[in-house]
Amino acid sequence: MKAVAEIQIIPIGSGVSVRKEVQRAHAILEDSGLNAQLHSYGTNVEGDLEDILRAVQRIHETLHAEGTVRLSTFLKIGTRTDKEPSLAGKLF
Amino acid sequence: MKAVAEIQIIPIGSGVSVRKEVQRAHAILEDSGLNAQLHSYGTNVEGDLEDILRAVQRIHETLHAEGTVRLSTFLKIGTRTDKEPSLAGKLF
Amino acid sequence: MKAVAEIQIIPIGSGVSVRKEVQRAHAILEDSGLNAQLHSYGTNVEGDLEDILRAVQRIHETLHAEGTVRLSTFLKIGTRTDKEPSLAGKLF
Amino acid sequence: MKAVAEIQIIPIGSGVSVRKEVQRAHAILEDSGLNAQLHSYGTNVEGDLEDILRAVQRIHETLHAEGTVRLSTFLKIGTRTDKEPSLAGKLF
Repeated sequence: MKAVAEIQIIPIGSGVSVRKEVQRAHAILEDSGLNAQLHSYGTNVEGDLEDILRAVQRIHETLHAEGTVRLSTFLKIGTRTDKEPSLAGKLF
Repeated sequence: MKAVAEIQIIPIGSGVSVRKEVQRAHAILEDSGLNAQLHSYGTNVEGDLEDILRAVQRIHETLHAEGTVRLSTFLKIGTRTDKEPSLAGKLF
Repeated sequence: MKAVAEIQIIPIGSGVSVRKEVQRAHAILEDSGLNAQLHSYGTNVEGDLEDILRAVQRIHETLHAEGTVRLSTFLKIGTRTDKEPSLAGKLF
Repeated sequence: MKAVAEIQIIPIGSGVSVRKEVQRAHAILEDSGLNAQLHSYGTNVEGDLEDILRAVQRIHETLHAEGTVRLSTFLKIGTRTDKEPSLAGKLF
């Protein structure tokens, strides 16, 4: 099932700057073959729902393996059956 | 990897009342064997991250199969390596 | 205008435990005279929309004044004109 | 207090397409004098926290006055004391 999503991660207890972790998460989304569009409040992606959810899990696994102690993710997911969901279609 | 999460679903275009779809989503979370706690703004769950994400996908698949045309999900996920994450541990 | 809302705050860079700040935010919501229900992923409140938004601003001002360097808030707001919105009405 | 925020609105029960309401909300944010950047999952804004919250309230009041029966808003707010928060500063 095709989906659109927004993914924002917040490392907790890693310091006031979270840039390194945010960059890492975005790179994992791009590596996953998803159409990934970075903005100031997260990364918007478009792709198969299963691939998106697998990428989210990979972000948690990777960041913890690389030293992040606590991670909070905010995820918005959109699916629809009347037409193919797309990031472009959500703009006006 | 153990995780805590909050799942809120919003069917779009299904009418002003969304009770039927919210009940269905909550039932799917309970059927998935997750510790599921309903509150006014979603269902908090505790369990394996992979099981949680699979349940979210099942919610989208099931509701669409049952007639919901458009579905928006808001998901918060928490993981940590210093101790086992739990819903009880997030209360004070 | 009457509203229901969910408020979750995350102090960034304050350490892995965020309990102290979460307790402080919840106390401010209760002091604001809102019906405030704590759960594992935030505090659900019910009251006048203007009072809710003012309480959110007071949380940011108070926590920064007390030493929190960076604060991220996740807020869900619900209003409706067909009947009075309530936290109880969102349960089933 | 200067803040950054992301605002996403979902009209519930207004039909499968929500474009008209999303456009209206974005226009209100722009009219409020906030630096407003539209993306596929909401509008990112930068400005005074009080102005941002007042604009959110104006969105709810305006959309209801224009016929929207039920409205759900998802708001992320960021403030910090170590430097001025900005949308540009959240990109890498």
